[in-house]
Amino acid sequence: VLLTELRDLVGRQGLLTEAADCWVYGYDNSQRHAMPQAVVLAESHGQVLELVRLCNRHRIPLTPRGRGTGTAGGSVPIRSGLVLSLERMTGILEVDPANRLARVSAGITNQALQEAAGSVGFFWPPDPTSSAVCSIGGNLACNAAGPRAVKYGTPRDNVLGLRAVTGGGQDIRTGVRTTKGVVGYDLTRLLVGSEGTLAVITEAMLKLTPLADSKRTLRALYSDIGAAAEAVSAIMAQPVIPCALEFMDGAAIRMVRHHVDLRLPESTRAMLMIEVDGDAEFVDHAATRIAEAARVSGLLEISIATDADQVANLWKARKALSPALRTVAPVKINEDVVVPVSRIPELIGGLERLSQEFKLPIVNFGHAGNGNIHVNLMVNPDLPGQIEAAEACLDRVFDLVLELGGTLSGEHGIGLVKRDFVAREIDRATLELMRGIKREFDPLGILNPDKSLPAPIAD
Amino acid sequence: VLLTELRDLVGRQGLLTEAADCWVYGYDNSQRHAMPQAVVLAESHGQVLELVRLCNRHRIPLTPRGRGTGTAGGSVPIRSGLVLSLERMTGILEVDPANRLARVSAGITNQALQEAAGSVGFFWPPDPTSSAVCSIGGNLACNAAGPRAVKYGTPRDNVLGLRAVTGGGQDIRTGVRTTKGVVGYDLTRLLVGSEGTLAVITEAMLKLTPLADSKRTLRALYSDIGAAAEAVSAIMAQPVIPCALEFMDGAAIRMVRHHVDLRLPESTRAMLMIEVDGDAEFVDHAATRIAEAARVSGLLEISIATDADQVANLWKARKALSPALRTVAPVKINEDVVVPVSRIPELIGGLERLSQEFKLPIVNFGHAGNGNIHVNLMVNPDLPGQIEAAEACLDRVFDLVLELGGTLSGEHGIGLVKRDFVAREIDRATLELMRGIKREFDPLGILNPDKSLPAPIAD
Repeated sequence: VLLTELRDLVGRQGLLTEAADCWVYGYDNSQRHAMPQAVVLAESHGQVLELVRLCNRHRIPLTPRGRGTGTAGGSVPIRSGLVLSLERMTGILEVDPANRLARVSAGITNQALQEAAGSVGFFWPPDPTSSAVCSIGGNLACNAAGPRAVKYGTPRDNVLGLRAVTGGGQDIRTGVRTTKGVVGYDLTRLLVGSEGTLAVITEAMLKLTPLADSKRTLRALYSDIGAAAEAVSAIMAQPVIPCALEFMDGAAIRMVRHHVDLRLPESTRAMLMIEVDGDAEFVDHAATRIAEAARVSGLLEISIATDADQVANLWKARKALSPALRTVAPVKINEDVVVPVSRIPELIGGLERLSQEFKLPIVNFGHAGNGNIHVNLMVNPDLPGQIEAAEACLDRVFDLVLELGGTLSGEHGIGLVKRDFVAREIDRATLELMRGIKREFDPLGILNPDKSLPAPIAD
Repeated sequence: VLLTELRDLVGRQGLLTEAADCWVYGYDNSQRHAMPQAVVLAESHGQVLELVRLCNRHRIPLTPRGRGTGTAGGSVPIRSGLVLSLERMTGILEVDPANRLARVSAGITNQALQEAAGSVGFFWPPDPTSSAVCSIGGNLACNAAGPRAVKYGTPRDNVLGLRAVTGGGQDIRTGVRTTKGVVGYDLTRLLVGSEGTLAVITEAMLKLTPLADSKRTLRALYSDIGAAAEAVSAIMAQPVIPCALEFMDGAAIRMVRHHVDLRLPESTRAMLMIEVDGDAEFVDHAATRIAEAARVSGLLEISIATDADQVANLWKARKALSPALRTVAPVKINEDVVVPVSRIPELIGGLERLSQEFKLPIVNFGHAGNGNIHVNLMVNPDLPGQIEAAEACLDRVFDLVLELGGTLSGEHGIGLVKRDFVAREIDRATLELMRGIKREFDPLGILNPDKSLPAPIAD
């Protein structure tokens, strides 16, 4: 009966029921997998609406999915049921440069949006590493950011309104077409980052930003992590905010050194990669100003690239990092914790101690301007006890982050994999309120069940 | 019994029960008034928590209040009960330049925060006209912005986390200390703009921005409103975003002309006031770039001020406007609608037609970069039928705004005075969801009742 209704709704072309076809819709970049009963490839808001209502009637779990690039298992259908893929909803419904906005269907890739916006001189700031393939709906569901967030903000700061279907099957519109608006409660930002647990976002009104004329790239090397963090604070305390302020710690630099000849000073223990964008007349001066702020005690060397070759050379260490990490350990547990910028040295110091205690390499890099550090536990599953050690270590990493006034995730989200840690960060009363909101949106609990919020603890 | 409990909670010094003392806590800048039973002057988060719980036990309405500068009646206790004034909670709990944040109690004035932040080289972007007296809690409750929002955003974009007490008496903390964070649902931005109907904000973690070195002021005059709107779009389409982009229409210019010698060209029908801030080395070039964008067909004159006298002279027309308006009409109905920038000419054209139809002067100015236009209906209550005409006209103004893809309020909020119009903008399903959220936060409906959301319509 269910399958017949589904076929009536989306046609044969829109429904996958063969195990081999369904399999690939059961995982994401977290490496977790669960098998859905069937996959629905919706082509319109109306189909999504009818599908959610059908799932309510049948009380069958529904897991919405962009392109499956998430790293936290948010789109893994752990309770089976149906997967709703939005990959066919790729329409660019409007690009309106006079009003600095674009309206798109949720399944469009980040890159396709950037191309459409770029053709009229604009861009959409969020730029996850997976931008070539990840979807805007997924970016919004996870509030997925990237390096440019330090200057231009996260999806939450770059969305005006949404069209969505709640878990209960209500057809809603949130927000406005304008950059200001205070009518009613802000459901737009409530949906952003809710990982598809409240509603399926089908359409988004996005705020566009004019493309800068020019960019400059700087690299600063430090003898210790404290100096690098001090430089980050100093850079962020002056009005020329860089459009990227990335960081690699000593462990990351050591790892890359084994693979690539970087010609860095031997005593380098921390590196900042900085980009500044702006007016062609100003960008050189802006780079100089940032270089001045970066010049703290402990600076070993600072370079400003003046041509494309030099830019490529400065980025060499950072680009070599991911391949190097893969050769060191087959399994990499990559967390994206955040701490206040001034606490970065304490975080890195603490991680070094945990690395020694658990005998696991820990390599750190990330978006220093936001204090958003990607902590990589390098696990060799062939060594006995390594997986257990990694899990115990991770537990301590999260405690350390919270002790430092930080948060468990800056952009990857909770999904499935961090669920059990959320209650360490958010108190019980606040969590209960979030659960109440979930019930308002999704009374039967069919939408992406057991994600994002932790399971309630019995009294 | 209630009064005894209140006295036990806040002491004699914290409780006002005399009618004369209570009276002034019954109104705000909307000119509406309602008399509370008593006024509680809380001094701590703990007192607020106990007070809300007490109101739940007694099922007595509680209306939270900052400094009463709101223009929509949001803090008027229309169901009587208690007013909770946060005016004594003025603590600056933390100013942390290394992490670009300040933590303050909700009752502190915007200006006191700016002084504290300014002393370490930062500012908090939201700058309502009432900044000398309005409170941060009120700014957050209303998402009150001001001219700088065009570049730096509204309170929603400049807050990291909150401490609050829900209507149901739950003690909650929302958000983070960092500029990124995706753990749990975004309750912070849900509370911002909810006009004290969901929770009482007692403390806020605010994102600070480094002060710019320098500022330049420009004035551009146009022969018609279409040209001015085209210039606004052109200015906003290039990467040098001004920190103010204010607008006066022909009616506003005519009005000021009667009172002040402005030496504007006779054919001036629209004026833009533009400020650009930035690095001292760059600000002159930035002003030139904005002037180039402003140079569209229909431009009559553009001036860039180079010293303080010239700045004062350029602002003369804008500063003379409010006094001029007061002499023209004793009652001014001031709405703060928003339309997409490209629709401003249609808005102004429509308002001119409504002005003729209803025989009411309508004067328009505001934050053009956001499309946030302050529409002023000039009412002389001594003329028969003028108040009724104004009400009928206002009704049509709101329809016009919604036809143009706009929103009813950009920063003043709904409060009491726009409640009956909300259902024209927000569809029924979305409103029901907002009501459900209200119930989750405030099950007994004691907190600022009958504000912000419209009354439910019986089926």
